[in-house]
Amino acid sequence: MIPWNDRFSDRMAHVRASEIRELLKLLDQPDILSFAGGIPDPALFPVEAIQAVCAEVLAGAGAQALQYSVSEGLPSLRRWIAARMSADGAPCDEGNIIITAGSQQALDLIGKLFLSEGDLVLAMRPTYMGALGAFNAYEPRYGDLADDGQAGGRLAYVVPDFANPTGRTLSRAEREGLLDRAAAQDLVIVEDAAYRDLRFEGTGEPSLLALDIARTGSIEAARTLYCGTFSKTLSPALRIGWVCAPRPVIDKLVLLKQGCDLHVSTLNQMIVERVIAEGFDAHLERLRGHYRARAAAMQAALTQHMPPGVTWTRPQGGMFVWVQLPEGLDGAELLAASLAQERVAFVPGAPFFAVEPQANTLRLSYSLPAPEVIDEGVRRLARMIAARMTGSNISRAAAGRSV
Amino acid sequence: MIPWNDRFSDRMAHVRASEIRELLKLLDQPDILSFAGGIPDPALFPVEAIQAVCAEVLAGAGAQALQYSVSEGLPSLRRWIAARMSADGAPCDEGNIIITAGSQQALDLIGKLFLSEGDLVLAMRPTYMGALGAFNAYEPRYGDLADDGQAGGRLAYVVPDFANPTGRTLSRAEREGLLDRAAAQDLVIVEDAAYRDLRFEGTGEPSLLALDIARTGSIEAARTLYCGTFSKTLSPALRIGWVCAPRPVIDKLVLLKQGCDLHVSTLNQMIVERVIAEGFDAHLERLRGHYRARAAAMQAALTQHMPPGVTWTRPQGGMFVWVQLPEGLDGAELLAASLAQERVAFVPGAPFFAVEPQANTLRLSYSLPAPEVIDEGVRRLARMIAARMTGSNISRAAAGRSV
Repeated sequence: MIPWNDRFSDRMAHVRASEIRELLKLLDQPDILSFAGGIPDPALFPVEAIQAVCAEVLAGAGAQALQYSVSEGLPSLRRWIAARMSADGAPCDEGNIIITAGSQQALDLIGKLFLSEGDLVLAMRPTYMGALGAFNAYEPRYGDLADDGQAGGRLAYVVPDFANPTGRTLSRAEREGLLDRAAAQDLVIVEDAAYRDLRFEGTGEPSLLALDIARTGSIEAARTLYCGTFSKTLSPALRIGWVCAPRPVIDKLVLLKQGCDLHVSTLNQMIVERVIAEGFDAHLERLRGHYRARAAAMQAALTQHMPPGVTWTRPQGGMFVWVQLPEGLDGAELLAASLAQERVAFVPGAPFFAVEPQANTLRLSYSLPAPEVIDEGVRRLARMIAARMTGSNISRAAAGRSV
Repeated sequence: MIPWNDRFSDRMAHVRASEIRELLKLLDQPDILSFAGGIPDPALFPVEAIQAVCAEVLAGAGAQALQYSVSEGLPSLRRWIAARMSADGAPCDEGNIIITAGSQQALDLIGKLFLSEGDLVLAMRPTYMGALGAFNAYEPRYGDLADDGQAGGRLAYVVPDFANPTGRTLSRAEREGLLDRAAAQDLVIVEDAAYRDLRFEGTGEPSLLALDIARTGSIEAARTLYCGTFSKTLSPALRIGWVCAPRPVIDKLVLLKQGCDLHVSTLNQMIVERVIAEGFDAHLERLRGHYRARAAAMQAALTQHMPPGVTWTRPQGGMFVWVQLPEGLDGAELLAASLAQERVAFVPGAPFFAVEPQANTLRLSYSLPAPEVIDEGVRRLARMIAARMTGSNISRAAAGRSV
């Protein structure tokens, strides 16, 4: 057998297995109450609409739908997205849009375009681990975006709305501050807007790209690369996302996209294009109502069941709550025990940190379980946490006695 | 405006626009007779079968078809492919298969896994330019696979059956010779089998992977990575390809795939899986009959119209004929003139060379035009070439006189 590990490229030292991936396999076990996967509720997929447009596309334009297409994506879909971005405060046209295989590919292509070995990427603590997974192959270093003193950064990666994993949203002042810093330190901002359409409460802030354009006067003068996706709003499986950015950046991303996989499925682009034409906003309202109810159930359950000393975020959109446990508890250890004893799954927080992980954290997703399941799952989880808090008090007390 | 060119990564110095991409845009002009695009005839797409299974999948398993799925691809599709690879002489199981977004992504992921800056990739002269497009981002050097003396190679990239762009197929002796050399020089072989299913004449040779396994006893001991695709046989737009390789390689490719774009469209995998279950071999027979007739028309037209001094290949499968013009003629110049004067498109040969390009070459694809269009297009092309040969004789004669 070939000693394969000796054959792999230098960059593979930076590419590691993701814990989320291993966790997703647990979802197949029917008795698990899962807060793990940050995936949309399939009950919300517009299956009938997709079925109808799919039949229509294949009947009316089957040859085109099944043929190669251009690497930048279908012009009509890019125009629709550009119009939507413009309506959201970021005036642009189709030349500012490339269609990608979900926003995950947007992150990969951006990493490929901007990162040489050793370049500094600034990210929130914690941040989306999939972004780290995309960037790692380009061998960057990471720094804390909250540390203003950290200079020399190349990319600033941020999820400003209902972040994965925290559910937090940047205030207007935080957004303006980030843009100030980016201009002062010559950072390129990667705005991951995966959850932006899922605000179910309160009023939103302009996107970083919109604020950037408001300052500079044009998307062509902006330094923000906006990554959008239909994965959270229509269907993840269709793998349709986009980047909205200045043209010189889009042109290079198109070249890279061509080398990576030529183009996104033509059929899937045509499906999305027709489904969104039939009333995307009404569909979004339905999603928001659904996640609003789930988020409320999660907040109620946490408030009711969690012992004092445990804190959590209260998101106004998206899918995630971030839980802070007392010092000394470990999310990974808790997960192992929770799966074994209580059959409750979640994601431990440590892997979401690019630097200085905090082990006493975890991410709960409320997107999938029904409200009563949320209550039961949180009840069980709280029971385990409470036992550990008592247990650790007892063992500390015991240790104190034995000394 | 940001001086973007100063911001891009070092690897972007290696990423250039592809001439094929610019050429594909010409296909939209209805009066062009095109031998340019190496794309399947859309008349051969099983539109009705795809329509039927698509409706069936969405009706019966819509939630699954539209949801995230695992990065390695659907187990049932991977089992089908493993069984087919096994029947083609390469015993393996689903653990040896990863589903990719076409074989283009297979090449990108393999480049990412194996190539560090400056590594030597050996390729045929000429070779598939899309492979160079995938590898370039990983900053390799290139060498000539036909030059046995060139040592120190990391990957040997080869299209053994009906190669793009030449239409040539490696003989059994050439295959064994390549495996001998790979073992002696410790090369990893990348076998691009994009056209392997499209043999319309003669009997085939075993794949390099099959011969490798025959020597080593098991796919786990092999050094060949086989890249397959449904793009040429079912539909390019669905973006479904695969790699068949030893498990340690597949495991790393899965990690990289996850970072790149999570997974291939679940819906599209389910469509392909059901369409191929309904009689893939009968479908392939139909394709072969079609391309056999087109290839015959191309050979007849070339024989009838081309002036002496022009030579070409005679493929037994696939989509391409490679034309060698007399010394001094230039495929790129011929294309410009041909588009302007004769409205015939093809791909000049030079871009297909990783090293030492030969300008007096061109690639003709017979996959799209009907037989009578092939005849007319070749007639026009031959007329231009003949005029240039006479012209260059005349000018040489004239030059002779003027000296």
